[in-house]
Amino acid sequence: MEVRSRDLDFGVRNGELGMGKNAIGRQMPDLLIEGGVAITMVNGEAPIPKARVLVSNGRIIGIGKVEEVRIPLDGQFEIIDAHDAIIMPGLINVHTHAAMTLFRGMADDLPLKQWLLKKIFPAEAKFLTPETVYWGALLGCLEMIASGTTCFADGYFFQDQTIRAAHAAGLRGLIAQGVIDFPAPGIPDPRENIRIAKEFIERWLGFSDRVIPGIFCHSPLTCSGQTLRNAWEISKEHQLPLQIHLSETVEEVNEIIKRYGTRPVPYLDRLGLVDGSLIAAHGVHLDSSEMARLKEKGAKIAHVPESNMKLGSGVAEISQMIEIGLTVGLGTDGCSSNNNLDLFCEMDTATKLAKVFDRNPMSLNAGVTLRMATVGGAAVLGLEKEIGTLEQGKRADIIVVDLKSPHLCPVYDPVSALVYSANGGDVKDVIVNGRVLMKDKEFMTVDADEVMGKVREISQRIGGAGSR
Amino acid sequence: MEVRSRDLDFGVRNGELGMGKNAIGRQMPDLLIEGGVAITMVNGEAPIPKARVLVSNGRIIGIGKVEEVRIPLDGQFEIIDAHDAIIMPGLINVHTHAAMTLFRGMADDLPLKQWLLKKIFPAEAKFLTPETVYWGALLGCLEMIASGTTCFADGYFFQDQTIRAAHAAGLRGLIAQGVIDFPAPGIPDPRENIRIAKEFIERWLGFSDRVIPGIFCHSPLTCSGQTLRNAWEISKEHQLPLQIHLSETVEEVNEIIKRYGTRPVPYLDRLGLVDGSLIAAHGVHLDSSEMARLKEKGAKIAHVPESNMKLGSGVAEISQMIEIGLTVGLGTDGCSSNNNLDLFCEMDTATKLAKVFDRNPMSLNAGVTLRMATVGGAAVLGLEKEIGTLEQGKRADIIVVDLKSPHLCPVYDPVSALVYSANGGDVKDVIVNGRVLMKDKEFMTVDADEVMGKVREISQRIGGAGSR
Repeated sequence: MEVRSRDLDFGVRNGELGMGKNAIGRQMPDLLIEGGVAITMVNGEAPIPKARVLVSNGRIIGIGKVEEVRIPLDGQFEIIDAHDAIIMPGLINVHTHAAMTLFRGMADDLPLKQWLLKKIFPAEAKFLTPETVYWGALLGCLEMIASGTTCFADGYFFQDQTIRAAHAAGLRGLIAQGVIDFPAPGIPDPRENIRIAKEFIERWLGFSDRVIPGIFCHSPLTCSGQTLRNAWEISKEHQLPLQIHLSETVEEVNEIIKRYGTRPVPYLDRLGLVDGSLIAAHGVHLDSSEMARLKEKGAKIAHVPESNMKLGSGVAEISQMIEIGLTVGLGTDGCSSNNNLDLFCEMDTATKLAKVFDRNPMSLNAGVTLRMATVGGAAVLGLEKEIGTLEQGKRADIIVVDLKSPHLCPVYDPVSALVYSANGGDVKDVIVNGRVLMKDKEFMTVDADEVMGKVREISQRIGGAGSR
Repeated sequence: MEVRSRDLDFGVRNGELGMGKNAIGRQMPDLLIEGGVAITMVNGEAPIPKARVLVSNGRIIGIGKVEEVRIPLDGQFEIIDAHDAIIMPGLINVHTHAAMTLFRGMADDLPLKQWLLKKIFPAEAKFLTPETVYWGALLGCLEMIASGTTCFADGYFFQDQTIRAAHAAGLRGLIAQGVIDFPAPGIPDPRENIRIAKEFIERWLGFSDRVIPGIFCHSPLTCSGQTLRNAWEISKEHQLPLQIHLSETVEEVNEIIKRYGTRPVPYLDRLGLVDGSLIAAHGVHLDSSEMARLKEKGAKIAHVPESNMKLGSGVAEISQMIEIGLTVGLGTDGCSSNNNLDLFCEMDTATKLAKVFDRNPMSLNAGVTLRMATVGGAAVLGLEKEIGTLEQGKRADIIVVDLKSPHLCPVYDPVSALVYSANGGDVKDVIVNGRVLMKDKEFMTVDADEVMGKVREISQRIGGAGSR
């Protein structure tokens, strides 16, 4: 077991820190996290008891046992106390629509088609504006911070606003402009959808090292082949991932077969879309040959079990996907079909659903599930060299999970505690790119009362007297 | 829609309060809860905005809108502030083994047989003592209080200690002595199991109006027909419910068919056990005729979906059970197969699992699910006249759920927020029998640090260096 920096002696071996691909220079730490057990998620690494993490200029420059990672005597840095806590990589939500917090709990217990066509689409058409999307997305960011998510892949409309929100909150993200061949919020004429997406990408590309723009094609049914192909070409040109909803329901698969004479994956393949940049959300009704083709071409899966359960869509064959080596991350989907953005709860549900679906309690064990929500998510977004693990040189996207609550006592295995016992409310500190976004449960970047107040105002417009 | 006490004027109509079956006398309130929306769970009653609840001597003596429920001017009472919160009946956990918090996360991701025979049974044999059961059960009580459960049905060994713990914590419960035809903790000679259970009941019956003793037969496979019959007779004699694990796995059902020539329900029926006092936990593999027979005889079901999922046992056909009118409550099972006692998360999982299992997003809607965890649970325990709703005359088992977190904003429908968005960590106040057990997230009856410290010590004995 190689532990790259566990024996790092900052004082003596400082000179080594500037070497290698992720050169970080002879930097002084600006942030210190210490006290608890660190789960690095580096393959094969055991938990580090009484760990210390040093951060400088947005990156991890040291991680190991407290006594093995020295602190420079003359250093000045912020300290995060992680005693009685777990230090781990921030969770990565690979599929959501953050601004849909606006519609949380507005329409439950309905068939997908009725839910989408009678409730969600009309509400979006009537109430989405740049202003409402901004506040909804910011509430989503706030909720993700509160529950330990440090990076998210988003697809929606008016996405300049979601980028603004992610910036204000300090989160990392792949934020994609929605493309659909119907009139959509901000795109009254669908013939403009590709142009608008292209301009969106050009406007934001390179703007930040935290937020990457992208395109999100709504689905192979709601976008024509030409639209899909155009979206793919723009994504390719800028080497960006392309997000799409894929095979969420049986009806959708059947309609594609009827319309195009083949199943969804071979259909997308024919268009040239199946490659390493494709992020397919849902994947509930993929057959074995479709999974094999996605794997062969390096396409990625965003697994969103709670949304698929709530809408009665079905159960993605996640064990089989993992077995054949498909890259899989975990997502919550939007708040109107979940109804929260808590990836800790999503992990718990994901593993239990796989076990009961497979009739095998060994399916998707705690370690595999936690990988899906961290390193798996990073790989889905193409960011595996930057985030997903706690390692020297990687971006400092770190969360601290408090263990002082009754439901997290005792701890025989911290990974089990995280997956089976914890919920998002146990997260106490959140760091993204070395910046502290939440400290001791206090939000450092966003005025939570203002955001919740704004969204309550908007919800009163949407739901009349329905909101409290 | 009849709202019994919504127009209660305490000052003028005080004389009426002493009437009726639940006579409460001309009592002054000793506790006042007010400010938030009250979900009474009384059939057909809409949420009460800006509600006020008056409690006296352990019972609810007034509930309605703030302006409609008057407070006596000269009263002295404790006040619970429920602004920006939901006031609702405490949740009822109809199947758990509280002291198994000791084994939380000790053995995950294993087949049921291996988990039970190689891990749980040996650990129980080696480490269960009156002392460890006390601390484990008290931790369980603490966790239930923290997550809004006010009443629980428990089955385990050394149950004097679980009664002690429930008393110390202030929870309500049906606490049953385990009976199994193998040597068990505290019962080295299984021929003594019925005598020990009988003495347990006689020792605790009538001791308290909060804690009821009972018998928990481990299963129709691990107890002989004679043992089951003896347990039933003692339960009958004292008019107490009889708890049993029933049809959890396919293997168990097949073994019963092999051994007794019929399925589990007809087998128990032959023994005379199927009646209104039977609480059958799991019920995963019941066929339609078994369900119909349970319904016909008034037997009850404890639905424990997360445990059934985690052990890969299968999915109970809960929609069918509810459709035929079976009385169903919700439980978590023990912490070694869940791994927490959070009934809010259990509600979320229960409804989503039913929807995806039925392939019907309308299955087990939020309202039905919340009923299962409140009024349904009360009916399972035979306590429907005392608890499960917020009504004048009922016991004051009340919780307050804080709505000030991002994941609970906005609220179009408070029932949706409770079932789909909340988790146990959102509970801020817990009242049982009129006594405040948790106020503003602070435990009032139990020294949480002491309990967690004791359980960590015990876990270190159990797991060696495994615990932090």
